[in-house]
Amino acid sequence: MKPISFSIEKKGENGKMRVGILETSHGAIETPAFAVVGTNATVKAVTPEMLESIGAEVVLANTYHLYLEPGDEIVKSAGGLGEFMGWHGPTMTDSGGFQVFSLGVAFGEGISKILDESAARKKSPQENAHAKLCAIDEDGVTFRSHRDGSEHRFTPERSIEIQHNIGADIIFAFDECTSPLAPHEYQNEACGRTLRWAKRSLAEHKRLGTEKQALFGVVQGGRFEDLRRQAARDISALPFDGFGIGGSFEKKDIDTAVGWVCEELPEDKPRHLFGIGEPLDILGAVEQGIDLFDCVIPTRLGRNGTIMTRNGNINILNAAYRRDFSPIEKDCVCYTCKHFARAYIHHLFKAREMLAGTLASIHNLSFITRLFGNIRESVQNGSFADFRSEFRAVYAKNLDKKA
Amino acid sequence: MKPISFSIEKKGENGKMRVGILETSHGAIETPAFAVVGTNATVKAVTPEMLESIGAEVVLANTYHLYLEPGDEIVKSAGGLGEFMGWHGPTMTDSGGFQVFSLGVAFGEGISKILDESAARKKSPQENAHAKLCAIDEDGVTFRSHRDGSEHRFTPERSIEIQHNIGADIIFAFDECTSPLAPHEYQNEACGRTLRWAKRSLAEHKRLGTEKQALFGVVQGGRFEDLRRQAARDISALPFDGFGIGGSFEKKDIDTAVGWVCEELPEDKPRHLFGIGEPLDILGAVEQGIDLFDCVIPTRLGRNGTIMTRNGNINILNAAYRRDFSPIEKDCVCYTCKHFARAYIHHLFKAREMLAGTLASIHNLSFITRLFGNIRESVQNGSFADFRSEFRAVYAKNLDKKA
Repeated sequence: MKPISFSIEKKGENGKMRVGILETSHGAIETPAFAVVGTNATVKAVTPEMLESIGAEVVLANTYHLYLEPGDEIVKSAGGLGEFMGWHGPTMTDSGGFQVFSLGVAFGEGISKILDESAARKKSPQENAHAKLCAIDEDGVTFRSHRDGSEHRFTPERSIEIQHNIGADIIFAFDECTSPLAPHEYQNEACGRTLRWAKRSLAEHKRLGTEKQALFGVVQGGRFEDLRRQAARDISALPFDGFGIGGSFEKKDIDTAVGWVCEELPEDKPRHLFGIGEPLDILGAVEQGIDLFDCVIPTRLGRNGTIMTRNGNINILNAAYRRDFSPIEKDCVCYTCKHFARAYIHHLFKAREMLAGTLASIHNLSFITRLFGNIRESVQNGSFADFRSEFRAVYAKNLDKKA
Repeated sequence: MKPISFSIEKKGENGKMRVGILETSHGAIETPAFAVVGTNATVKAVTPEMLESIGAEVVLANTYHLYLEPGDEIVKSAGGLGEFMGWHGPTMTDSGGFQVFSLGVAFGEGISKILDESAARKKSPQENAHAKLCAIDEDGVTFRSHRDGSEHRFTPERSIEIQHNIGADIIFAFDECTSPLAPHEYQNEACGRTLRWAKRSLAEHKRLGTEKQALFGVVQGGRFEDLRRQAARDISALPFDGFGIGGSFEKKDIDTAVGWVCEELPEDKPRHLFGIGEPLDILGAVEQGIDLFDCVIPTRLGRNGTIMTRNGNINILNAAYRRDFSPIEKDCVCYTCKHFARAYIHHLFKAREMLAGTLASIHNLSFITRLFGNIRESVQNGSFADFRSEFRAVYAKNLDKKA
C-alpha cells in the first residue's frame, strides 16, 4: 500500500496543466493546491479550526525550525505533526535544505546562496557572521542555529530521519538549494550533489519505512536549461512519489525554468513548486503543469497589513480605509469579510492589536484558497486561459495603483 | 422602557451575596459575571466567535482608548461598539477617568494617582513627563495622549457624549480615580468632585437620551470608611441604573472598602467592581455582594505564558511542560484544552508564535467563565462558603509552589 496516490482528472487547454486528486491518509488534496505554511507547526496567528473553515487543503511545516524547536523527537512523541498542532488534514515538511542555506550563508540576500567570494567580502561583519553559519561538504551541511548559534549537522540521512520523526504525509529529499545567480559550473556541481543526496535520502527512507510517508525528490539547476532538464531527468529516474522544484525564482523563471522541468517530469506524479505564492506567478506555474505550491505570502502580507483582493493588494493602513465600513471583499465568505469592516481592520492595525494579523491572514488565506478553487474549475471547464487573463487584468490594474 | 433590568434570583448564606439576571438589549447577563476586557474594541488575540464559544457574557471596552483611536465618531458610524467589533452580546464602557489618571500622573506607579509632591519629585525625568500629562480642575481633566502627546480634555459631559457615541449597553459616570494611598483630606475633596461630576454625567445622559444605555454611578473614597460609606450614600441617592466601585485595591481592601460600599448601596441595583480579576479576590468580593467584575488578568497573564488552573497558575514556559502531552486541564472543555497539549503551548511560547497568546487567553477566559458559573451555582445551592474554601485550598496551595 502506497502512502499517497495521485490521479489526473482533466488536462487543460495547453496539454500541460492539469487538475487531479492527491490522496493521503489524512484526506484528499484537490490539485492544483496551495500548502499553507506552518513553519513552527502553527500557521501564524490562525487556529487550525479557522484553517479548516477556510478550506485549507494541506499544511507545510519546516523541518529546520521543528528540529531546532521543539525538536523532532518531541513532535514524534506528540503523535506527529498533525496531532501536535491540532491539524487533521494532510501535511508536508520540506527537507531543511533551503533554511540551512537561506538562514546561513545567504541571510539578508533575499536569495538562497552566495557563491561569489568577493560579494561575501563586501558584506558587513554582521552579515559575514551569517555567511559563516553554513559549510557544505559531500556528506552534508554543518550549520549554526540562527536562534542561538549552536552547531548542527544535516545529512540526507539525518534530514529523512527528522522528517520521519515529524511524520508529515509528504516529505522531501535533502537537497542543496542554490542561488539563481550561481554560475553554471557551481550549479552543475550542486546538481550532482543533490542527485547523490537524493539516492541517499531514498535509501534512508526505505530503511525507516515507506508505508506512511511519501518521499518527493527535488530538482535544482538554477536558470540553466541544460542543468534543469538533466536534473529533472536524473531525479525522476529515481523511485520518488513526486517531485519538488527548488531554487529561488524570479517572475521570468516561472515560464522558463519551471516549464523546462515540467516537460521532463513524468506526468503521473505530483509536482510541487517551492516558495511561490504571488497569484500571477501561481497562474503561470499552473499553466506549466505545477500541482502543488507553498508560500508564506498570504500570512506574511496579512500580518503586515497588506490584504489580497481580486482588485489587487491593498494596504489596509491607508487612511482611505479609516471610515470604510464595507468588508474587504463583498463577495468573500471568509470569517473576516462576514463579520468585520475595513475600518475595523484598519483600526486593529493602527492599535497594533494581535487580532489585526489574525483577521488579515484569514482573509488572505481564504483569497488564495478561493483562487485555487477557481483555477481548478477553469482547468476542468477548459477556460483557464480566459480565467487567467481576466484575473490578471483586474488584479494587476489595481496593484499598479499601489493603494 | 428602561435600557436594563436587574432582578436578584437568590441571596447567599451571608445575606449579602446574590445571584441575579441583568437584562440588556443585547441579551441577559447572569450575575455575578465577568466582563471580558476589550480595551481597543478587541479582546486581545481572541476572535468574537471564540469569545462566544467560551461563554463570555459581556465585554468592557475603554473609553479613553477608543476616543483616541479610532475615535468615538467612527465607532458610532460603524453602528456602535458591538457592531464595530463583531460582538453581539452585552457591552460596557468605563468613563475614561481611570486611564486619564493611570496613564498620566500615576504612570509606572502601579496605582492610580500620585498626590505627594515630594514623591513626584523623586521620579525620573521620564516619569515626571508622565506626571505632567494630566491636570485636574473642577470642570474636568486636561491630559496628553500616551500615544502621541497631543492634548485632550475630558469633562463629565464629554465623557458621556463619547460613551453615547461608542454606544455600549452600560456606561459609567465620569469620576476622579484616586490612589488608595491618598490622604483623607484629598480623598474627601475628590469625592466631592466625583459627586458633582456624577450629577453632571446624569444631566448630560438625560439630555442625550436614556433609552438605549444604562448609566452607572461610581463610588470612590480610598480606604477611609467614612468617605467610602458617605460616597456610596451620596452616589446611590442619585437616579443611576447601577453602581461601580472605583479606586485601586489591594487584597485586604476587598473585605473592607468593598464591604463598606456594598452595605450602603441599594440592594436592587447591580454593583460593578472595577479591575479585579484574581480568582481569590473575586470570591471575596462576591461574598460582599458584588455582581459584576472586569479585569485584564486572564488575557494579560495568558499572553505572558501564565495559565490559570484550579491548581493554581502555571508558567507554561517552565521546562517541566516541554514533554507534557496532557491538556492544561483534563476536565476543561475549552478549545485549547480540547485540541492542544501543554507541550504544544510551551513550544508556541518558546517559538514566540502569536497562537501562543491566543490559546492561553482562550483557556484563561474559559477558566474565569467557568469559575463564575461555579460561583453562581454555589450561591444558588447555598454552598458558596464551602465552594470558596475548597477552591481557595486547591488554588492557593499550588500558587505557592510558583510553578
